[in-house]
Amino acid sequence: VAGAEPTSASDAVGRLPPRIAFLGFGLIGGSIAAALRSRSGRGTHLTAWTPAGVGPAEGLRRGLLDERAHDPVIAIGGAELIVLAGPPLAILETLDRQADVLRVAAERGATITDVGSTKRRIVDAAAAAKLPFVGGHPMAGRETAGASSASADLFIDRPWVVVPGETARPGDIERIEALASATGARPVRLGADEHDAAVAAISHLPLVVAAALIEAVARADGRGVKAADWPLARSLAATGWSDMTRLAKGDPEMGAGILATNAAAVAERLRSLRGVLDAWIDRLERDAPAAQLRAQLDAARRSLVDEDAK
Amino acid sequence: VAGAEPTSASDAVGRLPPRIAFLGFGLIGGSIAAALRSRSGRGTHLTAWTPAGVGPAEGLRRGLLDERAHDPVIAIGGAELIVLAGPPLAILETLDRQADVLRVAAERGATITDVGSTKRRIVDAAAAAKLPFVGGHPMAGRETAGASSASADLFIDRPWVVVPGETARPGDIERIEALASATGARPVRLGADEHDAAVAAISHLPLVVAAALIEAVARADGRGVKAADWPLARSLAATGWSDMTRLAKGDPEMGAGILATNAAAVAERLRSLRGVLDAWIDRLERDAPAAQLRAQLDAARRSLVDEDAK
Repeated sequence: VAGAEPTSASDAVGRLPPRIAFLGFGLIGGSIAAALRSRSGRGTHLTAWTPAGVGPAEGLRRGLLDERAHDPVIAIGGAELIVLAGPPLAILETLDRQADVLRVAAERGATITDVGSTKRRIVDAAAAAKLPFVGGHPMAGRETAGASSASADLFIDRPWVVVPGETARPGDIERIEALASATGARPVRLGADEHDAAVAAISHLPLVVAAALIEAVARADGRGVKAADWPLARSLAATGWSDMTRLAKGDPEMGAGILATNAAAVAERLRSLRGVLDAWIDRLERDAPAAQLRAQLDAARRSLVDEDAK
Repeated sequence: VAGAEPTSASDAVGRLPPRIAFLGFGLIGGSIAAALRSRSGRGTHLTAWTPAGVGPAEGLRRGLLDERAHDPVIAIGGAELIVLAGPPLAILETLDRQADVLRVAAERGATITDVGSTKRRIVDAAAAAKLPFVGGHPMAGRETAGASSASADLFIDRPWVVVPGETARPGDIERIEALASATGARPVRLGADEHDAAVAAISHLPLVVAAALIEAVARADGRGVKAADWPLARSLAATGWSDMTRLAKGDPEMGAGILATNAAAVAERLRSLRGVLDAWIDRLERDAPAAQLRAQLDAARRSLVDEDAK
């Protein structure tokens, strides 16, 4: 399978249209461009626009882009594949502000997609704007954000969720699956709600929990005051604590946009977690025997480890 | 500082008594032995006993030990420094079963310590057994357990908490601080409750949360039934989910012993976390504006990142 990947990725590059535009160009947009460049050379013309222009400038400097667009309308107008590659709230804003221009592009055959971390709100916004749209979410990331951290390898063998909007045309879906494959990712077709519930569990819930752990431990009563015993606790912290709080070190703007656009699904997961934690509080407060705590930890462990072995 | 460490560690090795015995010999005991060996060569005689004898056999094979004791009484009787190096519940059992033999050893000048992850219950048990005792907790670990994973570098520049019991003699405390320094660790003197509250925050709370995340996401209603959407969620999981659940992959026996011997402190931390999570549920369920979510994430992030920079 590993040996077959480059061929199928190169095949997929051949199925991409000649001109691709990115609206938003950070870690994900930059890594898509880097992956396409590494396989197609100059075969696909890549351009990008962002509000501040920092990412596109970096993309040009690194040779990931052919061109930097100074206006989103121009970027959209010149491309057969338009990738909304900002954070979720920026994607919603673009779908709102550029709806007319995007509709014209779609009518002349362009395909519109995004790479946002949540899908229901975005797919609905595209439908409200009467756009044939294919939502996307490449399931890859790293701690450092921005086009300067972009890597051609980021998506290799990772799932890339594809969520076709109601009016997406078959050719649109094929193009987005080709885009995913061309980066080395595996396209996985899902419904928006199915996607949002799944990422709420394995990505957005962990983000809230990482932040909540810090709040609970470092801050007295959740106010801005540092807890009296935090400096000592912190001085003893090891890799476990670092692992459990790493997600909370990410970009708060991105995190807030993700949580705001998937609030209901995340709240539902938090309520489940709260129930599980209440059971733990009960066990510990009534001094449950070690054997019972062991069985509980063991069951959790087996849920992960048994399946890792598969 | 890094340059000075080997000298002070070698100095400390010179202050150790000629014979050290381990009761319990897994990752921590094995790594202490490896660290002493790497600095003292054969200058200190090291022996170990465990109930099943697996760790000591591995220690002999790897040259970390001079001898394997077939009886805890013999190990205790032949040493001036006795390290209880099993999990917390095993340490409590040894303090109970071997109280008389340990008391005789202490009377002829031997020092008794432990390396357990919790301190109040252990220090109290030693006091009840009328033992001069110095509790210890080297703040280091790794994912894999057992003497086969032992490493001479495990403790370098890590804190080693030293909790003197009420009847510990000055020479006992000096010996334990020398033991810590000889492994490359930094001795940090604390009270038992102060230690237990701190590690509840940065180590035991994270362990429960890691297990609870798996329970909440992978299991329907906390029962043994797999949640219907878990296979899909799992297939999309990336490094964030792995980081947040890694602690739950550890030895359940060890985890249960830790939680059982620090139950009240962990429950208190869980109640704080629950309060913080309730506030998150409220924010998400009333669709708080992204700016508010951002401020909340940013405050948590700054608690960590600002201090990382110091």
